[in-house]
Amino acid sequence: MFADFKCQDGRPVYLQLKEYLKKQMLSGILQPGERLPSTREMATALGLGRNTVIQAYQDLEEEGFTQTVPGQGSFVAAVEVRYGTITELAWDQRLTAHAKAAVDLDIEKSELKWERGMISFKSIAPDGALFPTADFKRAFLDRFALEEGKILNYGYAQGYRPLLEYLGEYLKNKGVEPEGKAILVTNGFTEGLNLVLAGIAEPGDGIVTENPTHNTALKIFKLRDLQIYGVPLTEKGIDLELLAETLATKPVKAGFLIPSYHNPTGLVMSPESRRAVLEVFARYQVPIVEDGFNEELRYSGAHVAPLLALAGKGNNVVYIGSFSKILFPGLRLGWVMADRDLIAALESIKRSMNIHTSFLDQALLYEYLKNGSFEKYLRRARKVYRARHEAAIRLATALIPHRRIWGEGGLHIFVELAPKLNARQILAACYRRGVLFMPGDLFYTDGGGANTFRLGIGRVSEAEMATGFKIIGEVISEFEEEKNA
Amino acid sequence: MFADFKCQDGRPVYLQLKEYLKKQMLSGILQPGERLPSTREMATALGLGRNTVIQAYQDLEEEGFTQTVPGQGSFVAAVEVRYGTITELAWDQRLTAHAKAAVDLDIEKSELKWERGMISFKSIAPDGALFPTADFKRAFLDRFALEEGKILNYGYAQGYRPLLEYLGEYLKNKGVEPEGKAILVTNGFTEGLNLVLAGIAEPGDGIVTENPTHNTALKIFKLRDLQIYGVPLTEKGIDLELLAETLATKPVKAGFLIPSYHNPTGLVMSPESRRAVLEVFARYQVPIVEDGFNEELRYSGAHVAPLLALAGKGNNVVYIGSFSKILFPGLRLGWVMADRDLIAALESIKRSMNIHTSFLDQALLYEYLKNGSFEKYLRRARKVYRARHEAAIRLATALIPHRRIWGEGGLHIFVELAPKLNARQILAACYRRGVLFMPGDLFYTDGGGANTFRLGIGRVSEAEMATGFKIIGEVISEFEEEKNA
Repeated sequence: MFADFKCQDGRPVYLQLKEYLKKQMLSGILQPGERLPSTREMATALGLGRNTVIQAYQDLEEEGFTQTVPGQGSFVAAVEVRYGTITELAWDQRLTAHAKAAVDLDIEKSELKWERGMISFKSIAPDGALFPTADFKRAFLDRFALEEGKILNYGYAQGYRPLLEYLGEYLKNKGVEPEGKAILVTNGFTEGLNLVLAGIAEPGDGIVTENPTHNTALKIFKLRDLQIYGVPLTEKGIDLELLAETLATKPVKAGFLIPSYHNPTGLVMSPESRRAVLEVFARYQVPIVEDGFNEELRYSGAHVAPLLALAGKGNNVVYIGSFSKILFPGLRLGWVMADRDLIAALESIKRSMNIHTSFLDQALLYEYLKNGSFEKYLRRARKVYRARHEAAIRLATALIPHRRIWGEGGLHIFVELAPKLNARQILAACYRRGVLFMPGDLFYTDGGGANTFRLGIGRVSEAEMATGFKIIGEVISEFEEEKNA
Repeated sequence: MFADFKCQDGRPVYLQLKEYLKKQMLSGILQPGERLPSTREMATALGLGRNTVIQAYQDLEEEGFTQTVPGQGSFVAAVEVRYGTITELAWDQRLTAHAKAAVDLDIEKSELKWERGMISFKSIAPDGALFPTADFKRAFLDRFALEEGKILNYGYAQGYRPLLEYLGEYLKNKGVEPEGKAILVTNGFTEGLNLVLAGIAEPGDGIVTENPTHNTALKIFKLRDLQIYGVPLTEKGIDLELLAETLATKPVKAGFLIPSYHNPTGLVMSPESRRAVLEVFARYQVPIVEDGFNEELRYSGAHVAPLLALAGKGNNVVYIGSFSKILFPGLRLGWVMADRDLIAALESIKRSMNIHTSFLDQALLYEYLKNGSFEKYLRRARKVYRARHEAAIRLATALIPHRRIWGEGGLHIFVELAPKLNARQILAACYRRGVLFMPGDLFYTDGGGANTFRLGIGRVSEAEMATGFKIIGEVISEFEEEKNA
C-alpha cells in the first residue's frame, strides 16, 4: 500500500503526502472509517521523517478529511464525493452573440502560428532582453520594505495614490494642463479603451478613426457594436476635409486617434496637423480619444505635445496612456487622463468590472519610475530601437519591392506594395519559407489595405531582418513576375 | 533666474532639473531660441555638480527640447504649446445609461464613510497584519531569479502556465474531475463573473440566485441588464421547491450559488443540499455558476466538496475561484474552471477586455503556492479567524438584541432583527456613535432584508467587537423601546 507515492522537488514533502492521501480518499481507495497507518508505520513504509507524516496527518484532520480517536489513531472521515446525475450541456450552443464575435475576431485563434526556427515580424512587443530586471528587483525590495502587507490588500479603484500623483506630474511635463482633469489606472490600454467606450458610446454609435488604425481598437469597436467611420490617412496625415465631412454628417460620438508613431503606419502627426485636427473636432463638439501609444519612443525631431496638452484648459481630449508597450507589458498597466467628471464615472465602471488594478504592480511601477530607472532604461532602449528602426527602413527599402515604406518611429514599419499585390497570399508563401508578418488589411476600417503589411521589429536582430526581408522580397518578386507574365 | 528650483528627496537630481527646465519651456518662461546658461554657470548658480547639469542637458536635447550649437551652447527648441480653441464638453450629459447605472450602483460613492477613530464592520477583507510578507518576498526573489524579464513581457490570455497547472492539481485535490475542463485566470472574482456572464447571458436573460446573495454579484447582474430571480435562503438552505418552480417557469440562463460561507449569511450548504440542488438544475438543464468564495476558511466540520466536484464528469458547473479573499486581495487574482469549450470563448472575451492578467502577479502567486507558504499561512489564518469568528458569534449573541445570528465561517456574521426594525436607521444612529456596518438590504434581490445587517470581522480585534457590538446593541434597544412605546 502507498507504494505509488512519489516525491517531487520544490514542494514540501508533507504537502505532497497530504495531497496524495486526499486523492486516495476522494477516489475511494481509502474508504470512510478506514484507519490510517500510525505516523511511525507510515514514516517507515515511505522512508520519510516522522515529523513529516505528523504534519500531513494534522493538516488532514484540520481540513476535515480524517478524525483522530485518542489511543486508536486516525480514521478516514466521510468525504464521499458521490457524483450526481452527469449533465452534459452543449456549451457551443449556449454562447452569446458577443462571445461568438469575440472568438471570430480573435486573431490569435486564426492566424498562422510561429514555430521554432521561424523569423516573426508579427509582434510589436518590446525586447525582453533589454528589460531592466536588476532595477525592477531593486524597486520591488525598496517599495516592499516600505509598504509590506499594505500593497497586498485591497486598494482603490482609481489607483495607487503615489502613482496617480506621479502620472499627473509626468503629464504636466508634457505640457498638460491638469486643472479639472483626473487619472484612472487601468489594466493596460485595452481596458482603458473599453472603459472609455463603456462610458460614452452606446451600441450603434459612431466612432471616427484614421484608416488604417490599431487592429485591437477596431476589434473593440466591433465588439461594442459601434459604427466605424474611417478617414484616410496619407503620408500628409489624416484627410481633414473628409474628417470634417464625417463629423458633419454622421452620428459620431468620439474620434479615436493615434497621433504619435501611429499603428500601423508609424507616422507622427505634425504640430500643425494636431492643431487643425483639434479645431475640426472642436467645431463639431466631438471629443477625441487619444492613444498615447509609444509616445516615449521618439527617435529624432523636436518634442511634439500630445493632443491632451494642445487642448489646454479644454476637456475634450481623453488620453489613454501606457508604459507597457515598451516597459513591462506583462504587468498590464495603463491609465486614462480626462475630465474629472468622466473619470469619476469610469471609476465606477472599473469597480464593477474588476474592483481595481493590481496594487502590487502599481506600487512597483511607481517606485521604478520615481527612482529614475525609467529614464535610464529609456535612454538605452531608444538607442537600441533607433538603430533597429533605421536598419529596418534601410533593409526594407533595399530588399522589399515596394510602393512606399512607412515609419517614423516606434517598434514597427509599414510596407505598401503595388495595388495588384495581395499581402495575405504573400504571407502564405513567406510562411512556407519560415517568415511571418501582419497582413495590413487587419488595420483597415473598410476592407482595404490588401496590398499592405506591418513588420514588427522590437524583438528581431539586424541579421534576422536581413534574412527575413530578403525572403519577403523574393516572394514579392515572384508574385510580381506572375502578375506581369 | 532659476531661483525657484528646489530639490526633493528620493529622485535623481538631474531628473528634477530636467523636469524643472521643461516646465519653464512649456510655460513660456524660457522662450524658443533662448540660450541656456552653460553647464558650468548652471551648476554654480544652483549649487549642483556639473555632471548633474550635463546629464539633464543631454536628456533635454535627446527629447527634442533643446538644440546644441557647437561652440555656442544649448538653445531652447520650438516646443510651443499653443492652446487651440478651448472646448468645454458637458461630460455628465454624455454618459451612457450603463455609466450612469454603474455610478448609481456604486455603493462606495453613496455609503457612509469611515473616519479616524471609528470602528468599522463594513469590510470582509482579510487582516493585512496576518499577511505572510516575508514568504511573499522570498517567492518574488525565487521566481524572479528564475524568470527575470520573461514575466515582465506579454503572456497568454489563459494564464501563466505553471499557475494553470497548479490550479488544476489544486482543484483535483478537492475532488474535481479535470477531464474536458479548463481554467482561465482572471482579475479576481469580479472579472470572472463578468466574463462568464458576457459569455452565456444576453441582456434580459434570467439568473436565479439565493436570496440574499453577494451584493457585488447583484450589481453585476443589474449592470448587465439581467433579470434576477431570488430564491429564499433559510437556515435549512435554499428553498428547493421554489428553486424548481423558478427553473420550470422562468427564462433562466444560469444559477448563481455560494455554497460555502455564503455571503452574507455565512451558511454552508450541506452535502445533501448540494446533491439536491445539482439534481434540480440538472433536471432543467440549467448550468450553475459556483462562487468558491472563502472555501478555504473552513473552521470546523468535515470537508465539503464544491459543486464542481460533485458534478463529476458533468460540465454543468462553472466554478469561480479566488485566493484573493483571504490571501492577497491587492493582486486581484481569480480563476474560472469550466468546460473547455466555454473557457475557450471566455479566453477570447478576456483578450478583448485586457489582453491578460498580470504575469508578474500570477508568477508570484504560483511560487508562493508551490513552495508550501500558502498552507502555512492558512493554518495560522484559520486559527486567528476562527477565534475571531467564535468571539463575534458569542459577543453578538450577548450584546445585540436579535431574532437570529447567522454564520458558520468566513470573515463575517449576519444579524437578523425583529421585522419591525430598520437596519439603515440603526446604522445612521450607530454612525453618529462611531460604528459602521453593512445594511442587509444590499444583499436582497427583492427589496427585503430591511431588518438585517452584516458584520465583517476580518480586520477588527475582539476588544473592538466588544465595544462596537455594545453600541449597536444599545442603539437597537433604543429603537425597540421607541417602537414599543
